[in-house]
Amino acid sequence: MSKKYVYFFANGKADGNARMKDILGGKGANLAEMTNIGVPVPPGFTISAEVCDYYYKHDRMYPEGLREEVEQAVRRLEEAAGKKFGDPSNPLLVSVRSGAAVSMPGMMDTILNLGLNDVTVEGLAEATSNPRFAYDAYRRFIQMFGDVVLKIPHEEFEKVLEEQKKMKGVKLDTELDVDDLKGVVSGYKEIYKRYGKEFPQDPWDQLWKAIDAVFGSWMNERAIKYREIHGIKEGELLGTAVNVVAMVFGNMGEDSGTGVAFTRNPSTGEKKYYGEFLPNAQGEDVVAGIRTPLPLSELKNRMPEVYDQLVRVFETLEKHYKDMQDVEFTIERGKLFLLQTRTGKRTAQAAVKIAVDMYNEGIITKEEAVMRVTPDQVEQLLHPTFDPEERAKAAIIGKGLPASPGAATGRVFFDSKEAEEAAAEGPVLLVRPETSPEDIGGMAAAQGILTARGGMTSHAAVVARGMGKPCVVGCEEISIADNSFKVGDVVVKRGDWISIDGSTGEVMLGKVPTKVPKGLEGPIATLLEWADEIRKLGVRANADIPRDAEVARNFGAEGIGLCRTEHMFFEKDRIPIVRRMIVSKTKEQRQAALDQLLPMQKEDFKGLFRAMKGYPVTIRLLDPPLHEFLPQEDWQLEEVAEQMGIDLKELKAIVEELKEFNPMLGHRGCRLAITYPEIAVMQTRAIMEAAVELKKEEGIEVIPEIMIPLVGHVNEIKYLKKFIEETIKSLFEEHGVRLEYKVGTMIEVPRAAVTADEIAKEAEFFSFGTNDLTQMTFGFSRDDAGKFLKEYIDKKILEVDPFRILDRTGVGQLVEMGTKKGRASRPDLKVGICGEHGGEPSSIEFCHIVGLDYVSCSPYRVPVARLAAAQAAVKHG
Amino acid sequence: MSKKYVYFFANGKADGNARMKDILGGKGANLAEMTNIGVPVPPGFTISAEVCDYYYKHDRMYPEGLREEVEQAVRRLEEAAGKKFGDPSNPLLVSVRSGAAVSMPGMMDTILNLGLNDVTVEGLAEATSNPRFAYDAYRRFIQMFGDVVLKIPHEEFEKVLEEQKKMKGVKLDTELDVDDLKGVVSGYKEIYKRYGKEFPQDPWDQLWKAIDAVFGSWMNERAIKYREIHGIKEGELLGTAVNVVAMVFGNMGEDSGTGVAFTRNPSTGEKKYYGEFLPNAQGEDVVAGIRTPLPLSELKNRMPEVYDQLVRVFETLEKHYKDMQDVEFTIERGKLFLLQTRTGKRTAQAAVKIAVDMYNEGIITKEEAVMRVTPDQVEQLLHPTFDPEERAKAAIIGKGLPASPGAATGRVFFDSKEAEEAAAEGPVLLVRPETSPEDIGGMAAAQGILTARGGMTSHAAVVARGMGKPCVVGCEEISIADNSFKVGDVVVKRGDWISIDGSTGEVMLGKVPTKVPKGLEGPIATLLEWADEIRKLGVRANADIPRDAEVARNFGAEGIGLCRTEHMFFEKDRIPIVRRMIVSKTKEQRQAALDQLLPMQKEDFKGLFRAMKGYPVTIRLLDPPLHEFLPQEDWQLEEVAEQMGIDLKELKAIVEELKEFNPMLGHRGCRLAITYPEIAVMQTRAIMEAAVELKKEEGIEVIPEIMIPLVGHVNEIKYLKKFIEETIKSLFEEHGVRLEYKVGTMIEVPRAAVTADEIAKEAEFFSFGTNDLTQMTFGFSRDDAGKFLKEYIDKKILEVDPFRILDRTGVGQLVEMGTKKGRASRPDLKVGICGEHGGEPSSIEFCHIVGLDYVSCSPYRVPVARLAAAQAAVKHG
Repeated sequence: MSKKYVYFFANGKADGNARMKDILGGKGANLAEMTNIGVPVPPGFTISAEVCDYYYKHDRMYPEGLREEVEQAVRRLEEAAGKKFGDPSNPLLVSVRSGAAVSMPGMMDTILNLGLNDVTVEGLAEATSNPRFAYDAYRRFIQMFGDVVLKIPHEEFEKVLEEQKKMKGVKLDTELDVDDLKGVVSGYKEIYKRYGKEFPQDPWDQLWKAIDAVFGSWMNERAIKYREIHGIKEGELLGTAVNVVAMVFGNMGEDSGTGVAFTRNPSTGEKKYYGEFLPNAQGEDVVAGIRTPLPLSELKNRMPEVYDQLVRVFETLEKHYKDMQDVEFTIERGKLFLLQTRTGKRTAQAAVKIAVDMYNEGIITKEEAVMRVTPDQVEQLLHPTFDPEERAKAAIIGKGLPASPGAATGRVFFDSKEAEEAAAEGPVLLVRPETSPEDIGGMAAAQGILTARGGMTSHAAVVARGMGKPCVVGCEEISIADNSFKVGDVVVKRGDWISIDGSTGEVMLGKVPTKVPKGLEGPIATLLEWADEIRKLGVRANADIPRDAEVARNFGAEGIGLCRTEHMFFEKDRIPIVRRMIVSKTKEQRQAALDQLLPMQKEDFKGLFRAMKGYPVTIRLLDPPLHEFLPQEDWQLEEVAEQMGIDLKELKAIVEELKEFNPMLGHRGCRLAITYPEIAVMQTRAIMEAAVELKKEEGIEVIPEIMIPLVGHVNEIKYLKKFIEETIKSLFEEHGVRLEYKVGTMIEVPRAAVTADEIAKEAEFFSFGTNDLTQMTFGFSRDDAGKFLKEYIDKKILEVDPFRILDRTGVGQLVEMGTKKGRASRPDLKVGICGEHGGEPSSIEFCHIVGLDYVSCSPYRVPVARLAAAQAAVKHG
Repeated sequence: MSKKYVYFFANGKADGNARMKDILGGKGANLAEMTNIGVPVPPGFTISAEVCDYYYKHDRMYPEGLREEVEQAVRRLEEAAGKKFGDPSNPLLVSVRSGAAVSMPGMMDTILNLGLNDVTVEGLAEATSNPRFAYDAYRRFIQMFGDVVLKIPHEEFEKVLEEQKKMKGVKLDTELDVDDLKGVVSGYKEIYKRYGKEFPQDPWDQLWKAIDAVFGSWMNERAIKYREIHGIKEGELLGTAVNVVAMVFGNMGEDSGTGVAFTRNPSTGEKKYYGEFLPNAQGEDVVAGIRTPLPLSELKNRMPEVYDQLVRVFETLEKHYKDMQDVEFTIERGKLFLLQTRTGKRTAQAAVKIAVDMYNEGIITKEEAVMRVTPDQVEQLLHPTFDPEERAKAAIIGKGLPASPGAATGRVFFDSKEAEEAAAEGPVLLVRPETSPEDIGGMAAAQGILTARGGMTSHAAVVARGMGKPCVVGCEEISIADNSFKVGDVVVKRGDWISIDGSTGEVMLGKVPTKVPKGLEGPIATLLEWADEIRKLGVRANADIPRDAEVARNFGAEGIGLCRTEHMFFEKDRIPIVRRMIVSKTKEQRQAALDQLLPMQKEDFKGLFRAMKGYPVTIRLLDPPLHEFLPQEDWQLEEVAEQMGIDLKELKAIVEELKEFNPMLGHRGCRLAITYPEIAVMQTRAIMEAAVELKKEEGIEVIPEIMIPLVGHVNEIKYLKKFIEETIKSLFEEHGVRLEYKVGTMIEVPRAAVTADEIAKEAEFFSFGTNDLTQMTFGFSRDDAGKFLKEYIDKKILEVDPFRILDRTGVGQLVEMGTKKGRASRPDLKVGICGEHGGEPSSIEFCHIVGLDYVSCSPYRVPVARLAAAQAAVKHG
């Protein structure tokens, strides 16, 4: 038996179901599922995405047996619809749409009204007693077919339509009568001829060409770019399925209409039906944002029974899918048809609120709630908002629909390509009459999007919400022309600064300062508390100063995983002392400088410890090579020599001596401390004295963790531990106090990971420094790899930048090995990660899988990490 | 029962044997063994080296029960010797000597004639009827005891002796009579008093103090330095044992004497007894080289029966120990006693000859023969010899004994410390009247050693042979004074150049040019052929030019494991073209430069292939970052800009752009080829065209192996292989020829080792580039690590420089992992190593253990590698 490629659905019974997304696509699977759960859906069938896969693997040929299966499905469809394909008296018309397993709104092609030709259009006119409708449908079909299937520029068709209206002296398409439309139809056919094409009269010919076009659209530029932006990898999807569905018409008079709706507010998450409809219109009129539609409440007024039926359908769908749905519907002469349902895209804010509400409504579990929000969305919630004071002073020049929340500021650009280029030099705002799939690049590059037309479900709104970009749509007060826009008397030119508030719809002149939130409240706080209950990984922050430590605490960090003490060395009042230490010729001179630094470092640590009361604080000993503390340019050296009162030549000689060919692999990390143990001794003393004094004076208990960087051999830590332990011992004796502390190491040199069993005999904790570990494991200098890393990703040698997302195969293998070997020697070894990967969700997932104890990341990534850790726990147990 | 610490031997029966070296030391184990096999040995006992270990671990205390055991052993010794310790009438005298498991000649202390005091000396005088002898023994004992045990400067004693001789008006010690000697004894006792000490009269007190001194000498500066120079690690030995042996006297008249002998010639390896003796003397007179001894043949004349007995002992010993022996003997009134036997140190040349001879004599197997020569010795055989033509012209100013073969040239220094310092600035020759253990440092630093006094077994001779340094001893024509030496009319001052030939004993004025051998002949060729039969590892050479390839073949290389193509780029006629390639702005310009390079590279490869006829040749594609081909200094840039006819500013901009923070981790290796595949294509074409043309034109079959450097990800090799394969395919089509080739990769980035399973899917061979792998695994830049590596070794953080000896624990683990994983994907994967470790014996052993297919090293290391590989096979099977 040959493989099944076509899945039929009609009258409450379908071959497919919701779980078959991979082969039926989201749309097809849901049409099948809706059919099965009794939601009114027009009959139709879905051609599997496996055909698309086959098509591209076999030089655009179809598998054997497909033709027969499609013919059979059309026959069944004719039966279900009670109409016949190509029947001159009662023709079956169908829509042909793409639909992949992942929704790609507007990215691929759609053809409506297929089946009409010079003969069947008359039959349709007769059957509906509405010749105007029939010819309008026909001219739409010819236009769409020409555009989508034959690639004739759609402006050509617009021109003919505009001319017809002009000739007639009317403004709206609806003002054209049947004869006018017949004129349009022959005008359209002329266009075909001019392009050397012929409009196919045979519906079967139409159908196969349309199917070709939909499969072909999988690889068009827009679709490829969309997948690129959304991180959909090649081979991740089979391709698109093709849905062939009997047409229903929303443009059959005032008792007809079409709309889109969300079962909850996709912008705020409020539990309120939310949608728009256009009476007497086909669906694409809504999505394209050309006519501004009516709110859903208006449907209640106009067709109360239909509205009630729709509300019941909403409830059925939410109960069934356990998530907020985004539906398309059409009312044909008072009869409701659902054309599509899918999980609705939502803003970050909405995603969180819906997840929390749905748990409270008893629809989903806490684990499911946590899985409903992406780490990216959590990050968006921490995006800047306008500073309220500054905002109060701003000049509001217009107000549109608040399509996607958030504050954005940028220079205005009217062209997507230009916006994309300009974004390299600073923030831009994309301003368009309306957006179309061609604008994707510009939208991705912009800080925010402002459109003059379109509703809350217009292309701009949907896409911006998907991207998490602030967006204001339908701001009809502005008129765009000649690289500028006008609102009243105000003219905003290309390159001028404006600001938009996607939460209120307001448009403001100039650059309104924004600020980042300092903590969490509302549903996100609740959701992250659940995440905390679920996750197994601890989450700490990398913080060097008390201010950052406080932010980290407010965001839920459970300690500091990395305090880089050298950052303290760079402070203005310290750097001269640090330099004096470096140019010291004797141990005594060096000690004198260190003695000056000691009380300063101690105060730093006290601040950190206070902010982290009760939580562990990991402090890394001095790490960078000494030359980083000295200037390199001649004029700077002169200045410094004068300040320090030393000879310029001498200073230059020191700089010269400290120069390294490969500083990354040079005299830094613990190697410095081995040369100058007195530095490590000073830092140890500062750390432990701070802890001891806080305990004695303020009753604060701290567990300092002293971390030795760049260890590659167990003897390095052995050698330094002696100095550290001796310092602490004598300090405890001086103060007559003891307290808990740990001495551990960064694992950032490949050798450390490979010999972790030996190192763990000396180290009480490990912290993977995956930035350096990635550099050394790949042999990539982060400072230099820019040149070839981009090329590597372009040439698909690497899928992603390994400095952003932990390379599981290579670096990750060392992390896993290091963890296992370390724990083999010391079963209670505490293991964390403090590279930048510690705040990146996929890397966090990996840390969970290999059983790390915690991740540490920048304070602003802490909420993201909390969620990502919980999601990893849900996914992997 | 308490542990046994004391091992007794006497009358053909011993507690110990030769296998107990670890605890009895070499000397003690051999005394026991000799006793057991019937060789005449004075009775005695050995205190185990375990006591030494205990002593240092317990704050210089002895284990319980030791005292009792020693007392009991002394009693047994008294019985065996028929004398009593402290007996006024017939006193037992003993020697107390150190002896570790590894021979450390002259490094530790020895005391003779112990047991003498004011009373027993009279008894001895009576028992031997030789008061002069008794008092001479007594004064020697007091002097030695003062020097060794009480650290009184030995010059003090010399002074007293000299004064006595002066008073008496004689020159030789032997001219002093018993009364003079009594005077010396009281003079000596005065010295003790002046130093606040007392000479102990109680023999037991003497014995324990002497034992203390011997154990104490294990940690004296000389001994520590000796172990350092000879690579004996801390903890490798338990310590020294102490041998207490009944004294026999070689100074009891003309029927007495003492000597040292080798069972074969330790300098040439000739099968001829070889040794020296001094009539009427104690052993230390020979070893110290103060009196020039008589050749062994003289013994045959003077005491033929003793000589015959000695020869029989030699035969017994060689048969028993299956190796050339170095013995000390004493004749007391016509009776032969062997005091010591040990495996004789020998020159490299002798080691090889003895091993080959002993196999031919049926004494040892080929495997044993191969184990008898160290890789260092093989290396010494490849050391420079004088260019015969130049040598013929040289002015020979003197001739001494050829104590250790080889040619050496250097500036003359008379002080060891000075020689050590001067060696940093160029080769030095150490010239001394005679050497003592204090000269070890200077000898190690010098190219060669010349002494005015001493025989073939003097300190200088023995130590120089051990070090493999050319050495001429006993060149009595030279007289040294005031930082210069005189031979006839010639005066050679400090810092002047001379040359010595350790094989002939000749001393020449000035710097006689040397040359290195170009091949192998004689016994070493035979031995290495046996090594080839035994070894499992292949041995290839790293060679970039035909000349090196020929040397490699002559030394037995079985192919080229690494040809660095960039070395060809640096040639004078090429570098301008290479630079033109680098500054190219378009692919076309770059291609034009590459087209010029192609025929040149092709000729290079043809030369290599011809030299390696029939053997595989691995050619690495361009590796270094491009900036290495451009000058960095301004004046050089000006010159190059002018030569190339391009704008200086432009050239500077290119240099600036190519600069990298960490070039080691930058744009080099396969990353270059990925950016500029045309370079790889050109090189591939040059390699394969060379092979094809050789096949067609000269009938030479080559198997080129194209090696891609610095691979870290399988996709890198995948990407480049496409270009390589396409180039080869079209080239085969052009020429209508096909031939075998392989495409493989260096494994030098840690990630490559970790993901070797993936990489082996694309690579047909691996070659571990352990230089870079060591850099990245440790995170040590070889260019910068100098600063801290020395410190690391001094502070015992690292045992050895990991760039010299492969770090088995870390880097080695990656090598092993890479090999295993690679073979898991591709069972016939060929795996080699081409870092500098490929010529280092311990690293070669490791390569054998982990199952590599071959090592590749510099041409001059090939013989070393052949031997080391065979030894690894013998040791590990």
